[in-house]
Amino acid sequence: MSATSKAAIAAVDWGTTRLRVWLLDASGSVVDERRSDEGLLIAQHKGFAVVLDRHLQEMGAPAALPAIVCGMAGARQGWIEAPYVDVPASLADILGAAVRVPSAGRDIRIVPGLAQRSARTPDVMRGEETQLAGVASLIGSGSHVVCMPGTHSKWVIAEGGAISGFGTWPTGEMFSVLSGHSILRHSIGEKPAAVAPDNQVFRDWCQEALFDGDIAARLFGIRAAGLLNGLGPDDAAAALSGLLIGAEIASATRRFGRRGAPVVLVVSGSLGALYAEAMALDGIAVKIADADQAVLAGLVAAARRNKMLTDGEAR
Amino acid sequence: MSATSKAAIAAVDWGTTRLRVWLLDASGSVVDERRSDEGLLIAQHKGFAVVLDRHLQEMGAPAALPAIVCGMAGARQGWIEAPYVDVPASLADILGAAVRVPSAGRDIRIVPGLAQRSARTPDVMRGEETQLAGVASLIGSGSHVVCMPGTHSKWVIAEGGAISGFGTWPTGEMFSVLSGHSILRHSIGEKPAAVAPDNQVFRDWCQEALFDGDIAARLFGIRAAGLLNGLGPDDAAAALSGLLIGAEIASATRRFGRRGAPVVLVVSGSLGALYAEAMALDGIAVKIADADQAVLAGLVAAARRNKMLTDGEAR
Repeated sequence: MSATSKAAIAAVDWGTTRLRVWLLDASGSVVDERRSDEGLLIAQHKGFAVVLDRHLQEMGAPAALPAIVCGMAGARQGWIEAPYVDVPASLADILGAAVRVPSAGRDIRIVPGLAQRSARTPDVMRGEETQLAGVASLIGSGSHVVCMPGTHSKWVIAEGGAISGFGTWPTGEMFSVLSGHSILRHSIGEKPAAVAPDNQVFRDWCQEALFDGDIAARLFGIRAAGLLNGLGPDDAAAALSGLLIGAEIASATRRFGRRGAPVVLVVSGSLGALYAEAMALDGIAVKIADADQAVLAGLVAAARRNKMLTDGEAR
Repeated sequence: MSATSKAAIAAVDWGTTRLRVWLLDASGSVVDERRSDEGLLIAQHKGFAVVLDRHLQEMGAPAALPAIVCGMAGARQGWIEAPYVDVPASLADILGAAVRVPSAGRDIRIVPGLAQRSARTPDVMRGEETQLAGVASLIGSGSHVVCMPGTHSKWVIAEGGAISGFGTWPTGEMFSVLSGHSILRHSIGEKPAAVAPDNQVFRDWCQEALFDGDIAARLFGIRAAGLLNGLGPDDAAAALSGLLIGAEIASATRRFGRRGAPVVLVVSGSLGALYAEAMALDGIAVKIADADQAVLAGLVAAARRNKMLTDGEAR
């Protein structure tokens, strides 16, 4: 019997630019996985059902295998809209509000995103709520700040199994548009090297930004440091990265306060080291969780909450 | 005798994307003017001498007419490099450091830009120093804050005819790259209407940003306000404009302080009304000077300082 024939459910993280599919057995363990760049932007054109069916078929999954999905597939412009759940909301209620895709050849449910309907800080997320559910055991009880860095970094207040509020800092996107389309493209060049967390330029610019969170006052300084002080392209990229990450941390801790307990940092790859370094510079203790593992654990939790997997077998 | 045959000098403001040429008589009065999009980016390829000679010829200027130039023509990648003058520096010394273009068919001098060689706030300007010289009489003595809004807004501390320090806030550029290349392009659309200073959305977002200067915490809120509250494209543009201008003012007044005297706002067109409204929201009194007039007056002052025009005749 092949591994994939043991598959009991597919778990799908469908973002704007990325798609990840795992096949899980009845205990929630991974039997196969694959990644693709057929995120929302491509699936909108190819068709969500077509894309998912093809991946599952190529993975040798049974024809009627059910699937639990999170992320942008549930957006208005996605597969079907999974209406936002308003915060405050418990993680159990969020996962339980998964929406069934009608007339699909298999049982497909999409986890809803979250909306913060505030006049001063309106905000939305899709996908990170599932990551959060995946680190619920790490968070535990009490009031915790969770930081999920990325294109649109999310900071969340988690309190006793519920999400009470959150905010978005588009740090990754600002790095991309400013390094690619502003005057800083002359400073940074087309292919900056990856920024290392022990780069002193990263640290210096981060430290400055941690002080007051001010980005606009310092952006042009990267250009000027190139003209006046010979700051090279790789260090210019490090300066921009330090500036934006430091400002994000200053701004988010100003909004959410410092709560004594470590910040839970949910992140994958080299970005985690940059955020951990930046938080260390600010004297913030962190507990790191892998973002890829977190979303998978959250999808398993969502499958169980919706009776697509039985609770008992993995316990 | 035609008007242009009375020309005693050409005054040239040569920016990154724009070129303006005035013909002045011996008293410094304008006898003709024209505008072109042959800024640095185009003149680099066509040749600065070729571009200027053609405009002057088409304007009917005498063949050997001298020219006083400010702006990016003096950058390293410009016509010839007019090395930065370091601040603090007197306006008289800055104008007097104009550099002669060698082996041109006419007497051409380029006013240098300014450099602030600071480890924490390195900065440069080219062109605004000439605008400042043009509003010197408006500034008078004492210590004054001058705000020159634009693609790269400059804030300057002017003290008794000298520039003691300055900073750059790339507000116009951030509006352009964020509205055109970030997720906010979905909120704002391709052709947002011009923002009116009495737009309440502009005022609300400006007021919020004036409070703490925090841009990153609020950018994604424009997208969320579209998804949750139906904020339309024109209001989304107004929100981004208010957010960026408010944050600039909050940040610049944090760096330079509030000095009792009105802020001198050197600006042209509709942008002036937005900045004046934003400063009024912050309780800052302003004295407005037209930026086009200022640069022309500064070029006349530079021509006199370099004995290209005699002092007496305009007084």
